[in-house]
Amino acid sequence: MDRITSRTNPRIQRARSLRESKYRKETGCHFIEGDKLVREALTSGTQLETVFVREGYAGEASFPCETVLVTDGVMDALSTAGTPQSLCAVARTPALKMPDAFAGMVLLLENVQDPGNVGTLIRTADALGAGAVILSPQCADPFSPKTLRASMGSVYHLPVWVSDIPAALRALNEQGYTCLCGHLKGSETLPPKTDKMALLVGNEGNGVTDEAAALCYAYRLPMPGRAESLNAAVFGSIMLYELMRK
Amino acid sequence: MDRITSRTNPRIQRARSLRESKYRKETGCHFIEGDKLVREALTSGTQLETVFVREGYAGEASFPCETVLVTDGVMDALSTAGTPQSLCAVARTPALKMPDAFAGMVLLLENVQDPGNVGTLIRTADALGAGAVILSPQCADPFSPKTLRASMGSVYHLPVWVSDIPAALRALNEQGYTCLCGHLKGSETLPPKTDKMALLVGNEGNGVTDEAAALCYAYRLPMPGRAESLNAAVFGSIMLYELMRK
Repeated sequence: MDRITSRTNPRIQRARSLRESKYRKETGCHFIEGDKLVREALTSGTQLETVFVREGYAGEASFPCETVLVTDGVMDALSTAGTPQSLCAVARTPALKMPDAFAGMVLLLENVQDPGNVGTLIRTADALGAGAVILSPQCADPFSPKTLRASMGSVYHLPVWVSDIPAALRALNEQGYTCLCGHLKGSETLPPKTDKMALLVGNEGNGVTDEAAALCYAYRLPMPGRAESLNAAVFGSIMLYELMRK
Repeated sequence: MDRITSRTNPRIQRARSLRESKYRKETGCHFIEGDKLVREALTSGTQLETVFVREGYAGEASFPCETVLVTDGVMDALSTAGTPQSLCAVARTPALKMPDAFAGMVLLLENVQDPGNVGTLIRTADALGAGAVILSPQCADPFSPKTLRASMGSVYHLPVWVSDIPAALRALNEQGYTCLCGHLKGSETLPPKTDKMALLVGNEGNGVTDEAAALCYAYRLPMPGRAESLNAAVFGSIMLYELMRK
């Protein structure tokens, strides 16, 4: 196994460059931090390019790809999180093509810009059994370090597609889906639940666009208290729960 | 109106020191950033000590307390958020004594350490009409800049008490409350809903302590998907929604 002792090693520099969206796009790769996330990516069939193993790591360190040992200093230079990690990896970003037919509950995110919100919503969609997540191109990158961390690996569990949201809503509507969005002027009554429900969550400050709202059932979650709104990830999670519950 | 042009002005230094928990405790004050939060604090009766107004601010800038003009550079030095603000303030932290009798839905947080989670949960509790929030002393400070930001001012809308959690749960149980917590080994059936429901949310990594869990109905939220758990703020928000919904 190769051993890297310098932060200026080209493979370390390349891995670090993947913190930036620009390089993730250019290379079609992303950077994964931490034992749990690396193993989630692996078991879900994500193609790893290089795994970086901290010297002295006691866990299983045999991977079906290039694997290199790195010193503590180099591993710390790789990390973006505060907590020191034992494993990191460079992985090929899955390039998922949106299918012609959808199945199960679908979550759509339109211009959700906080990586924590995007990651948390992917995590909730995964936990509550949604079939897929569709992101508008303006959403936070699901493969940025922050989003990956918030998703806790769920981004590897269910298909995450990037698409124009009105186009996706039109396709869902044509297939008999009930598309729902949160809207201040919406109805406080939910539409009948079917096994084809889709939920659209909009931007943190501005909500959903008019174009997208026009393709959805507008719902206003009753809020008897004083806060005017909910955090976007909380709103989306409550709605996913409401749509999946018996 | 006084005008401050230097970042080393003692009033600016004092305001900046309130970023640290230690100084918030010592002084009984906290720092509020942004027009919306300052006005929320004011209308809720929070006592402001000093309001800092950016030079050229076009809004209403008459406050029932010391008000000083600051230059752009000084305001930027005061800000902890990325976005530039027009108003900031130093406020007395409400010292709320837990009452002998509770009313409405109660949210308890035990060792929830992420300021974003604490703030988001206070915001959800407020939106969904909870009566109060009780935090263990080990929770993230509800008056830290990050928590305040995530709470969107909700910390000024409902009482937020700090208390030993088992003691609070015992008091709630004695008053006929049904105290519920999330637990991996809990039942997947909810207890009957009454108008006296309390929800306990535990630490992000470790969940609720055994001592607290023993005082609660242990509930396991059904999760048909692959993610093993939910974000703490999401779990708490879904449960608050479930408990308040008709």
